[in-house]
Amino acid sequence: MNYKTVIYTIGQILKMVACLMALPLLTALICGETSARSIMSFVVPMLVGLGAGFVLTRSRPVEMSFYAREGFLIVGFSWIVISLLGALPFAIGTFGDERFADLSFMDWLFESVSGFTTTGTTILHQTAAGHQIDIMYACGYRGLLLWRSLTHWIGGMGVLVFVLAVLPSASGASGIFLMQAESTGPTVGKLVSRMSSTARLLYIIYTVMTIVEIALLSIAGFFDGGMNFFQAVVLSFGTAGTGGFAATSGSVGDFGIYVQVVVGIFMFLFGINFNLYYLLFIGKAKDLLKNEELRVYVGCLVAGIIITTVNLRVGMGEVAEYSNFWSALGVASFTAVSLMTSTGYATADFSSWPVLSHGILLLLMFIGACAGSTGGGFKCSRFLILVKCAIMRCRKLLNPRAVYSVKIDGKRLDDEVASGVTGYFTVYVLILLFSVLLVCIDVGALGDNPLVTSFSSVLTTLNNIGPGMTPIVGPSGSFFAFAPATKLLFCLLMLFGRLEIYPILMLFTPRTYTRTA
Amino acid sequence: MNYKTVIYTIGQILKMVACLMALPLLTALICGETSARSIMSFVVPMLVGLGAGFVLTRSRPVEMSFYAREGFLIVGFSWIVISLLGALPFAIGTFGDERFADLSFMDWLFESVSGFTTTGTTILHQTAAGHQIDIMYACGYRGLLLWRSLTHWIGGMGVLVFVLAVLPSASGASGIFLMQAESTGPTVGKLVSRMSSTARLLYIIYTVMTIVEIALLSIAGFFDGGMNFFQAVVLSFGTAGTGGFAATSGSVGDFGIYVQVVVGIFMFLFGINFNLYYLLFIGKAKDLLKNEELRVYVGCLVAGIIITTVNLRVGMGEVAEYSNFWSALGVASFTAVSLMTSTGYATADFSSWPVLSHGILLLLMFIGACAGSTGGGFKCSRFLILVKCAIMRCRKLLNPRAVYSVKIDGKRLDDEVASGVTGYFTVYVLILLFSVLLVCIDVGALGDNPLVTSFSSVLTTLNNIGPGMTPIVGPSGSFFAFAPATKLLFCLLMLFGRLEIYPILMLFTPRTYTRTA
Repeated sequence: MNYKTVIYTIGQILKMVACLMALPLLTALICGETSARSIMSFVVPMLVGLGAGFVLTRSRPVEMSFYAREGFLIVGFSWIVISLLGALPFAIGTFGDERFADLSFMDWLFESVSGFTTTGTTILHQTAAGHQIDIMYACGYRGLLLWRSLTHWIGGMGVLVFVLAVLPSASGASGIFLMQAESTGPTVGKLVSRMSSTARLLYIIYTVMTIVEIALLSIAGFFDGGMNFFQAVVLSFGTAGTGGFAATSGSVGDFGIYVQVVVGIFMFLFGINFNLYYLLFIGKAKDLLKNEELRVYVGCLVAGIIITTVNLRVGMGEVAEYSNFWSALGVASFTAVSLMTSTGYATADFSSWPVLSHGILLLLMFIGACAGSTGGGFKCSRFLILVKCAIMRCRKLLNPRAVYSVKIDGKRLDDEVASGVTGYFTVYVLILLFSVLLVCIDVGALGDNPLVTSFSSVLTTLNNIGPGMTPIVGPSGSFFAFAPATKLLFCLLMLFGRLEIYPILMLFTPRTYTRTA
Repeated sequence: MNYKTVIYTIGQILKMVACLMALPLLTALICGETSARSIMSFVVPMLVGLGAGFVLTRSRPVEMSFYAREGFLIVGFSWIVISLLGALPFAIGTFGDERFADLSFMDWLFESVSGFTTTGTTILHQTAAGHQIDIMYACGYRGLLLWRSLTHWIGGMGVLVFVLAVLPSASGASGIFLMQAESTGPTVGKLVSRMSSTARLLYIIYTVMTIVEIALLSIAGFFDGGMNFFQAVVLSFGTAGTGGFAATSGSVGDFGIYVQVVVGIFMFLFGINFNLYYLLFIGKAKDLLKNEELRVYVGCLVAGIIITTVNLRVGMGEVAEYSNFWSALGVASFTAVSLMTSTGYATADFSSWPVLSHGILLLLMFIGACAGSTGGGFKCSRFLILVKCAIMRCRKLLNPRAVYSVKIDGKRLDDEVASGVTGYFTVYVLILLFSVLLVCIDVGALGDNPLVTSFSSVLTTLNNIGPGMTPIVGPSGSFFAFAPATKLLFCLLMLFGRLEIYPILMLFTPRTYTRTA
C-alpha cells in the first residue's frame, strides 16, 4: 500500500475544493452579503482546506504510481474529507441565526454529502418563519445557496476526475484507477489513450452543456417573473450534476412551462453517457443510434411515461392538474425523467399519486441513468447486462453443455464484467435490505406508511435521487425529522450510491490496509 | 425433445393423483358425508384423472431416457395439470351451495395451486354466514378440507419424487432430471446412488415425521377441547408440507400452548434439509453440526426472534399479548419459524406489529428454509452462497489478479453453481419487481397501504408462505378480493416459487420446443 501517494492526493483535493469555494464567496460579495459572518463562512473553510492541503502535500512522494487498491482508498477518503469540509460553510454561515438554530453539524454534513453525491435531498424544512430554503434565498444566504448547488456540479462528474483534468501530472498513468473508482457504470470508457485528456474532454463537454443551459434559462428572465441569473445558475448546476437542489422551496414548480421544458430536456441529456457526446463530436453519430444502453434508457423512460400518464388519467382524472391529457403527460414526463436520471426536481407532489405510478417510478429510480453520466442509480447498462445474463442462464439450462456469451453493442461481453455486474447487484440488494431494516428502527420519523417511507428513503439516498414516495420524504418533505444515527446511515448510503459501493466498503475492510492480500 | 416420454410421465402422474383422492373420499365417508354431491366431488375427478391418465399412458415409449429439457417440461406441465385436477373436487363439492356461490373456478384453481405449492394462502373468506373455512369444517365438507391439506403434503416433497419413489421403472436413470427440476435448492443431493432409492428414502423420512406429528397432536385431544384426530391430520399435513392450511379459520391460534409448541417444533424440523436426517440416521451426526446451511438457518431464526421480541416489548408492550416477556418471545418465535419455513400458520395477527418486525419478517420470508426441505423461499444455502460470492468479489477488487473461490462446508464451490445462484437471484428479483407492478394495477383490492400490500402479497406467493403484511393479505385476510387476472398471476407466482422458476419459465419459452438449441 502506497500510503504516501494516498495522503498526497487527498491533500491536492483539499486544496482544489478550497479554491472552488472562491466562487460562492464571490457570489456572496456580488449579492451584497458583506457581513463578517458571510465572508468568514467561506474564508475559514478555505483556510482550513488550504492549510490541511499544504500539510498533506508537503513532500511529493518519489513513487507516484499506484494500483486499484490505492485508487479505491483515495476516492473513498477524499469524498469523506470533502464532505466534512463542504459542511463548514453552512455551519459557520448560519451560526447564531435562530431561524437555523434547530440544525446541528450532523444536519449540515448531511446537506453537504447530499450535495456532493448529487442526491439533492435536504434537511432544510418548513418552520414557523417560513421554509428555510426560502429564508436563505430572501435573507442574504445566496453565497451558501450557490455553494450548495456547486457541490452538485463538482460531485456530478467527480472530484478526482477534476483533479485529473486540471493537474495531469497528479497521478500519471495510475489515473485509470481513480477513474475506475469514481466514475459510474460497470466499465470505464477511455475516450482517448491518455487518462488526463479523457478527464479534460469530459469536463469540457460537461462545462459547455452547463453553460448552454444557464444561457437558455437566463432567457426566461425576460418573461418568467421568478427567473434571474442566480436562479439560472443554481438550477443548471442542479441539473448538470443530476442533483436536484433549487434556490427556493417551490423548486422548478415555481416557473413556467418554458423553464420546465428546458430543465426536463437537460436532465435527460445529463443522464446519457458522456462518451456518446464525444462520439457525436467526432462525427460518429451512427454509433450513437446503435448504442444499446441508450435504447434501454429511452425505452424505459417512454414506457414509464406512457404507463404513468394513463394511470394518472384513469386514477386521478378528477384532479384539475391531471384532467387534461397534455398536462398529465407533461407532469408524468418531467417526473419520470427527473427520477430516472436521479435529479429529483419535482413539478408535482407525486407522493399522492396512485400506487401503480409509485411502482413504475420506483422501478425507474432503481434502474437509473446511463453509465458514464452524472446520474445515479443502478445504471441502464448494468440492468441490460443483468437481463441478458438472466436470459442466457435460461438458455443454458436447456442446453447445459452449450457455450453462450452475452453480447452488448454487438461485442462479446467479458465474463469478468458480467459476473462483476451480478456481484454488484447482490451487494447492492443486500445493502438495500439491511438499510431498510435499520431505518425501520427510527420508527418515530416514519409516519403513517412506515415501510414505504423507509424503503423509498433508502432507495432515494442509495440511488442519489432525492425525494421518496410518501409525504414525509416526498418532494415537499424533508429528512430533518430522522434521528442523527439514521442521518449518518443515509450519508453512508449516499456515498455508497455515488461511488458505487466498493470505495466506501473498502474503507471499512481491515484487509484493505494490510500489506499483502 | 422426447415428447412421448413427457406425455407418458404426465399420464402416470394423473393416475397417481387420482388414486390419492381415495383418501379424502374415505374421510368423507367416515365423517358421514354420504350425499351424492360429496361422493361425486371425488369420484368425478378420480375418473377424469384415471381416464386421462390411461389415454396418455396407452403406449409406453420405447426410449424412456431423457435429459434436462424434458425434465423441466414434465415437471412444469405436470404441476399445471394436477392443479387443474385438484381444483375439481372443490368446484364440484360446493356446487349449488349458496354459501360458496361467490367463488368461481378461478378461485378454486387458486386454492388448489396454493395447496400443491404449499403456499397456504386462501380465497375462502368471512361471509355473512360465517367464515367459509368454518362452514366447511362444521357443515359436512371435511372430505374437501382433508383434500385441501393433502395437496400440501403431496406438493411438499413433490409429485414427481413420489412417482420416482413408488414407480422406480417410470423414468430409469433420467430420474435425476426430474429431481433436479422439482426439488428445492441450488444442487440436488443424492443420498444413495440410485435416484429411485433416494426418492423412496426421502418419502420414508417424510412419512415417519408426519406420523410422529399426528401422534403427538392426537395426544392433545385429551386435554385440548378443539383437537381431534381429523384436526391432528390436517395440521400435520399443513406443517409437513410447510403449507399452512388449517381446518378452522382460527388456525393454530385456536389451540393451547402444547399444540403450538408441537407445531412450532415440527415447522422448524420440516424446514431442514432432509439429507441431514439421513446423515443422522446412518450415524453421521457430526456432519450435521458442521453443516453451514443449518447454521445460517438457525442463526437467522435466532437473530430474527430476538429482534422481533425486543421490538414487540418496546413498541407494543402495552398490548396484553406482549406485556409479558415470555409470551412475546413465544409469539415472536412461532411467527418467525412459521414465516421463515414458509408455512404461514399464525398465532397472532402480525399485520399490526411495528414496522421493524415487519422488515425482519419480510427478510426471513425472503431467505426461506433450507434447500432440500419442503419449505419455500430463496433458500438458506443460496443466501449463503450469495453473501460469500459478494465477499469474494470485494476481495477480488483489492487483488484483481488473485484467484479466489467460494467454499461451502469446507469444499470448493463449483463456479457453475455459484454463477447459477447469482443468476437465479437476478431472475427472482426481476420477476418480483414486475409482479409487484402488475399487482399494483388491481388497485381496488389493495386498500390503505397499497404498495406494502402488493409487495408482501407477491413475496408471500412467490415464496410459498401464505400471509402477507397488511390486514388485507395478513393472517386473518383472504386473497378473495383480488381480480381474476391478479389471482392468475398469483397462481403463476406460486408455481414459480415451488418449482424455483425455471420449469414454469421454460413452458413459455418457444425455444424449449424446438428440436435443437
